[in-house]
Amino acid sequence: MADFIPLSVPNFGPREAELAGQAITSGWVSTSGARVAEFEQAIAAYLGMPRAVAANSGSSALHLAAMAAGIRPGDEVLVPTLTFIAAVNPLTRYVGAEPVFIGCDDTLCIDPDAVEDFCANRCTLRGGRLYNNRTGAHVAALEAVHVFGAMADIPRLSDIARRYGLVFIEDATEALGTRYTAGPLAGRCAGTMGDLGCYSFNGNKIVTTGAGGMLVSNHDDWAGHAKHLSTQAKADELQFVHDEVGYNYRMTNVQASLGLAQLARLEEFIAVKKARYDRYRAALDGVRGLRILPFDEENTRPNYWFFSLYLKNSGLDRDTVIRALQAQDIQTRPVWALVHEQADYPKNEAYALDKARDYRANIVNLPCSTNLSEADCDRVIRAVLAL
Amino acid sequence: MADFIPLSVPNFGPREAELAGQAITSGWVSTSGARVAEFEQAIAAYLGMPRAVAANSGSSALHLAAMAAGIRPGDEVLVPTLTFIAAVNPLTRYVGAEPVFIGCDDTLCIDPDAVEDFCANRCTLRGGRLYNNRTGAHVAALEAVHVFGAMADIPRLSDIARRYGLVFIEDATEALGTRYTAGPLAGRCAGTMGDLGCYSFNGNKIVTTGAGGMLVSNHDDWAGHAKHLSTQAKADELQFVHDEVGYNYRMTNVQASLGLAQLARLEEFIAVKKARYDRYRAALDGVRGLRILPFDEENTRPNYWFFSLYLKNSGLDRDTVIRALQAQDIQTRPVWALVHEQADYPKNEAYALDKARDYRANIVNLPCSTNLSEADCDRVIRAVLAL
Repeated sequence: MADFIPLSVPNFGPREAELAGQAITSGWVSTSGARVAEFEQAIAAYLGMPRAVAANSGSSALHLAAMAAGIRPGDEVLVPTLTFIAAVNPLTRYVGAEPVFIGCDDTLCIDPDAVEDFCANRCTLRGGRLYNNRTGAHVAALEAVHVFGAMADIPRLSDIARRYGLVFIEDATEALGTRYTAGPLAGRCAGTMGDLGCYSFNGNKIVTTGAGGMLVSNHDDWAGHAKHLSTQAKADELQFVHDEVGYNYRMTNVQASLGLAQLARLEEFIAVKKARYDRYRAALDGVRGLRILPFDEENTRPNYWFFSLYLKNSGLDRDTVIRALQAQDIQTRPVWALVHEQADYPKNEAYALDKARDYRANIVNLPCSTNLSEADCDRVIRAVLAL
Repeated sequence: MADFIPLSVPNFGPREAELAGQAITSGWVSTSGARVAEFEQAIAAYLGMPRAVAANSGSSALHLAAMAAGIRPGDEVLVPTLTFIAAVNPLTRYVGAEPVFIGCDDTLCIDPDAVEDFCANRCTLRGGRLYNNRTGAHVAALEAVHVFGAMADIPRLSDIARRYGLVFIEDATEALGTRYTAGPLAGRCAGTMGDLGCYSFNGNKIVTTGAGGMLVSNHDDWAGHAKHLSTQAKADELQFVHDEVGYNYRMTNVQASLGLAQLARLEEFIAVKKARYDRYRAALDGVRGLRILPFDEENTRPNYWFFSLYLKNSGLDRDTVIRALQAQDIQTRPVWALVHEQADYPKNEAYALDKARDYRANIVNLPCSTNLSEADCDRVIRAVLAL
């Protein structure tokens, strides 16, 4: 019987075990310990940012971003509907705000045309603040999620955010390593161009600490505030004086040790991801109506996190494909159920949904672990072609 | 120069390194992985509960408890003021509720007389629900924190909660291993007698996973709901359908591996704690007006987590003592600043504060790590006696 091929699992080697083992043997396992600051500095250096703030998950990093950005109860936030729900809840419900959902363009990321249309035609700008004509609420922020490692359209989204007074938050939880290679933003990494950017080191991410996250900001005081909020807002370490409602969102020294070892291998991981992506593409794209959705390789260097097999013109049905591959011990998945259709959001506005619905209906994500062998990749290809 | 004696640090051995190393080498580092369920079962078995729900911190466990208990925006919760602020925020501000602060008795835990007085004389019971006469708000819950490993007065507090329709939440973050040894509750562990109980495995706790927490409940559906909320409330694993606002509060497999190794040593740790406590007590209690505050060793087996040197009649000043010991590389700390005096709570009610103020002013916590040697314990004793 053939081995199980998982969708996306960690790729750990001797260095991960060595660094984490040092932390455990030394007893420096908790949220104090030098590796946390070292990992923050390593991520900041990789991204070209002055500092980075570690957190215990990507969700925590996004919640910290919402608080640092000053999103308040009753505010509204423009968010994509084609994303994991943890991209939405921390920026909205965790802080008492409401989402306005926007569909995607062909990068799978939030559609700038639809964002512009909402701001220009459904809102009013008064005194530098945007108000939703329908609800009267203050539209405080715009979130772009770099879906599957693809770069969202940062130049246009940044410009919209600037013109309409919106805080611009990049959810780069899936896009560590994605960067522009052409144009005025050449060299800039996903997550570093908005007011705030968040990363995830969850188990399925390209770099993992088991669970973990990171926040960066182009406002140094926002990053400092996020750090403060992540450590229970302790204003006096000895006397346990706290100057606002804080959280225990700290990363542990063991997690940071894993992250340091993983980050050193990020470029290697991206090279493997690209090789497997190219292999799927050569074998499947354009064959029998199948497509492997493209990344923008002209203007960006994506991190190739997740690969999307697009079924629309193939005559194949998403859930049938997933079940047939599962029966052959090949794990795949659909895109997330659109967030605006989830139980918590029936009353929220949602616009420009056609492409999001189409991609939701027609994408199957193929196995993409960085330890996926060429042989296993070929087994997946054969299984797809035999459908 | 003498070595630094820390207040409370982890005690890790080869088994911790072995189990965590297995998780890392296998690649099972994230929130999936068999050790999480194994650790949940081990804690449940230790506590004599049907199940336990792992979380990434004690604060997360308490937030899950608040949501599982159905504490709603505008509700009020009776909480102790002599505690870490993370005992209060997750049950109140994280869910939009407000605290009513109550002082302590000589166990350092919430004073049952003051709780009874507040319920009987400042509230009205209507239709089984308690309403605060001053604010009109629904008083939804009562929290007891088992401070420093001492058992709060569970029989009286349970009875009050029952008579006034309050959900009773035990914060046992400091009290894993504390149990009744006499009376009708003999054999029952701190955290297992209320509607919900929460534990912490933070770096300074008697059993640590670096960061981590656990929740138990006497309502099986509440525990199940807490588990659901801790995993982003995913109602359909494959299709990413979420039926309410959830959180990423999961423990990782690495953390659970550490916890399993640590839990096997809990009774050994308590024995060391008791030996050091007895040593401090024999040398310091009653000497020159000093006291080592007692645990109730007649009716309970405490876990002896933190030791309290009480200065009131010694002529010594708390902060002077802390600084003098720090100058000799001995780390100590005061009790937390009272929570009702913190920046976020100036408008909240607070009652029966005399003892809490007295203990806040006069306690210094002495080094109490389970790897504190007798020689280092004696060095602390000599330093205190030389003050």
